[in-house]
Amino acid sequence: MITGKNYIGNQLSAQGNITFKTFNPLLNIENQWYITEASQNEVNKAAELAAEAFKTYATISGVKKAQFLRAIADEIEALGDELLEVYSSESGLPNGRAMGERGRTLGQLRAFASHVEEGNWVDASIDTSQPERTPFPKVDLRKINVPLGPVVVFGASNFPFAFSTAGGDTAAALAAGCPVLVKSHPMHAATGEMVSSAVIKAAEKTGMPNGVFSNLNSSGIEVGKQLVRHPMVKGVGFTGSIRGGRALYDLAAKREEPIPVFAEMGSVNPVILLPKALNNRAESIAQTYAGSITLGTGQFCTNPGLILAIKSQGLTNFVNMLADEIIKFDPSCMLHPNIEGAYESNKSKMLSQHGLKVLAVYENDVKANHARQAVATVEGATFLNNPTLHHEVFGPFSLVVQCESEQQLEDIISNLDGQLTGTMISDDNEIVNYSNLVSALQNRVGRIIFNGVPTGVEVCPSMLHGGPYPASTDSRFTAVGVNSIKRFVRPFSFQDWPNDLLPEELKNDNPLNIVRNVNGNLTTKKIV
Amino acid sequence: MITGKNYIGNQLSAQGNITFKTFNPLLNIENQWYITEASQNEVNKAAELAAEAFKTYATISGVKKAQFLRAIADEIEALGDELLEVYSSESGLPNGRAMGERGRTLGQLRAFASHVEEGNWVDASIDTSQPERTPFPKVDLRKINVPLGPVVVFGASNFPFAFSTAGGDTAAALAAGCPVLVKSHPMHAATGEMVSSAVIKAAEKTGMPNGVFSNLNSSGIEVGKQLVRHPMVKGVGFTGSIRGGRALYDLAAKREEPIPVFAEMGSVNPVILLPKALNNRAESIAQTYAGSITLGTGQFCTNPGLILAIKSQGLTNFVNMLADEIIKFDPSCMLHPNIEGAYESNKSKMLSQHGLKVLAVYENDVKANHARQAVATVEGATFLNNPTLHHEVFGPFSLVVQCESEQQLEDIISNLDGQLTGTMISDDNEIVNYSNLVSALQNRVGRIIFNGVPTGVEVCPSMLHGGPYPASTDSRFTAVGVNSIKRFVRPFSFQDWPNDLLPEELKNDNPLNIVRNVNGNLTTKKIV
Repeated sequence: MITGKNYIGNQLSAQGNITFKTFNPLLNIENQWYITEASQNEVNKAAELAAEAFKTYATISGVKKAQFLRAIADEIEALGDELLEVYSSESGLPNGRAMGERGRTLGQLRAFASHVEEGNWVDASIDTSQPERTPFPKVDLRKINVPLGPVVVFGASNFPFAFSTAGGDTAAALAAGCPVLVKSHPMHAATGEMVSSAVIKAAEKTGMPNGVFSNLNSSGIEVGKQLVRHPMVKGVGFTGSIRGGRALYDLAAKREEPIPVFAEMGSVNPVILLPKALNNRAESIAQTYAGSITLGTGQFCTNPGLILAIKSQGLTNFVNMLADEIIKFDPSCMLHPNIEGAYESNKSKMLSQHGLKVLAVYENDVKANHARQAVATVEGATFLNNPTLHHEVFGPFSLVVQCESEQQLEDIISNLDGQLTGTMISDDNEIVNYSNLVSALQNRVGRIIFNGVPTGVEVCPSMLHGGPYPASTDSRFTAVGVNSIKRFVRPFSFQDWPNDLLPEELKNDNPLNIVRNVNGNLTTKKIV
Repeated sequence: MITGKNYIGNQLSAQGNITFKTFNPLLNIENQWYITEASQNEVNKAAELAAEAFKTYATISGVKKAQFLRAIADEIEALGDELLEVYSSESGLPNGRAMGERGRTLGQLRAFASHVEEGNWVDASIDTSQPERTPFPKVDLRKINVPLGPVVVFGASNFPFAFSTAGGDTAAALAAGCPVLVKSHPMHAATGEMVSSAVIKAAEKTGMPNGVFSNLNSSGIEVGKQLVRHPMVKGVGFTGSIRGGRALYDLAAKREEPIPVFAEMGSVNPVILLPKALNNRAESIAQTYAGSITLGTGQFCTNPGLILAIKSQGLTNFVNMLADEIIKFDPSCMLHPNIEGAYESNKSKMLSQHGLKVLAVYENDVKANHARQAVATVEGATFLNNPTLHHEVFGPFSLVVQCESEQQLEDIISNLDGQLTGTMISDDNEIVNYSNLVSALQNRVGRIIFNGVPTGVEVCPSMLHGGPYPASTDSRFTAVGVNSIKRFVRPFSFQDWPNDLLPEELKNDNPLNIVRNVNGNLTTKKIV
């Protein structure tokens, strides 16, 4: 049952006076539930509970954290079809996507469970003492990752499961040992409440301290600001717009004690089409990319919004084929009227730029909140000189930039903002002749792809989801995969600490049998 | 020969009109050399050279970077006694300290050389493809750490070698593959020039690109601001005051593209004396701490500036003994008249606080720029309510807080600012009865010490030098030890990338024979 209340720790709570409703974009009507915004008092109480919970949760064993994370996954599964229905009613995303995203979310939670259960992630490092060393004896030093403290997680509009309530950021923070305060996304607050109920149930079943998780609602920005400013909050995870992410970053940087903000923000994910590939298979590339541009109504942060190539007959063929292919797709529903409205407005702004030529726009009538996909093209020099053309149009849109020369193409790549991904489309090994383009692209992105599409973010340890600003606010971390836990930990050293009082991971006899760096060597051996 | 010029890449340069002199605090006279401040034009040129150098230096092999780092160490050694003399003339620090700090600096450079030569530091991670996986094939993903780009390093007043020109930050950045722009410390600019000449010689001998290192002088803050604001700069390392570090952090956070700033700043390094230890050996603890407080004229960031204990006869004995012992030390010379002036002024401010009782102040005549050590004491309640008492007095000063109860002691610890270190002085295993104090302390520090002194920072992989703000601006990294390289790198993923074009570290046959995470397992095995 959806109550519309906040979870302040284990308790449902609705002290505030403001309510709002979520929206069903497919039916183009408001959903039935009244969601109550969290009051300042509730925000404070949640933060205080989190700080109190941190005192015990920070040192709970990996095995127990794994039980908690797996229980969350199980409880989400136990919510069954009703959860999928609420998800779809608040996002317009179809049942298949709901199932797929739920599976990914469960997989993430279970992957983090295995990660902290195995235990190598703490990066245990031990340098034993040398009492006889001259001129000074060497002390015993042992280092391990410890959690930062309570973390605020902002739900993302486009991933109600995988990047929201119990999504990647929450799983990473909980795995690290950090209590989580979720600021639920106002577009899918009921989905958020259901998932929160699963987290709370799991916390209770596995004996986690009250306050290890809270879920706070609001339709505006005030609750999020209160959370990020709260002195007991020690870190922030965010997925969304550059404007939103930067605002949170600025807020956190202005605190008396600045805290780290990992915001995964905008990206146009440039795709470079090399000449031979265009010459030999322009049509199949166009077909593949028409699919990637429209996938999920273009509502992925890895959507290919920018395609770059040197002018040639192959490029002309590609452009024509892309125009033909893109309008073959049936328009699909966007997440919310506001997102569809922003798409139309950003698309119009883009298409009205000087020198921009429309290649294709879907022009038939569409249902409410359905997006009309579009592709356009522009000369390299025009692109270089107009920053507006570099901006992301969130939705099924892509811009093809036709360059005069390889040098111009390199200049364009070098002048791009930071991006999540960059893709090289190459025939056989023609890419070896374009190492300058590859270097330039590598310098602007977090992940580079050979002959593929940027959409589809594999969840695995070798994934890097992030990149130079504004792709993310701190390119030194990933938002996807188990290594994203590193955003929420700090290394900590024990000097000459009694063996009995050390964390298990650092004890002489290595009871958890983890891999440790002992005097410079990676080993699972005991210290004798 | 000292020219007083800047190094703009390999070239000595002095385009500016402003000169300044460094100061010999022991002789209480200005040094002879005229140091020329860098002009905005020189700053820009150095940054552009660094960005150009980054294009090649970013991908130079670990073996070549190791040659460069070792050559720097060799060239510094080759400067011989003259370097030590200039060091002492600009810092007042004695020859023994100069030799020790040079040894540490050479050791750091060589440790980073071995670290990047061995190669495991890149955290290579490989997830191989599963083309047959349903519903979607799994792509091949391979991840590795890559350098951020040009890094600005600010020299520290109190470590002219180990935390300055070719100190830990520079060694870490160069090891990572980042060109370095040093903003030399104005108090030891001639020492900085000599060390810079060694870096440049090493760069030329080992074939590094021009611009991999520059050294820029100024007596004020403008050159530093220009460097941190420069769009081609991608990271900052700083050791110094909270005011200075925070100003740089704020500047970097306000950039259009914010960049990471690792500032290692102030700390009072609380020391907790437990009751039994005080009861059994108050005198020896007092003797040890009188030595630690006055070591290096108290000019260490790990100086024990705050001692906390519960009232007892043992504490009274400790306090009396500390007062007796501290004035037995002969006052020594501070780094600069400004630092000695700040010490006297901060000490006076502290000693004039309501409720503070002076235990001992060295009162005999001293030579110019020599610091009169002092210790004082205060009640726990007074300390809790007066933030001024929490501030660092940089120099040979320490404050003993006498608590009414264990609860008050815990409250005080919990309310401390973030610190580099915390120390527990315990008899046998009495510490097991104070796990609440240990937890509270652990939450406020980066390194915790059992029955030792915080001064003396061992350079090894398990050292964590840093801590919650304001000990450092990002507690997720260390400033000391080879892991400090992580401040200046970002992970980067290759998706389905051709094996021949991958970096050596990620190739199937593992030509560098490094430890890699392959499909979740740490191994040196090839991929077949």
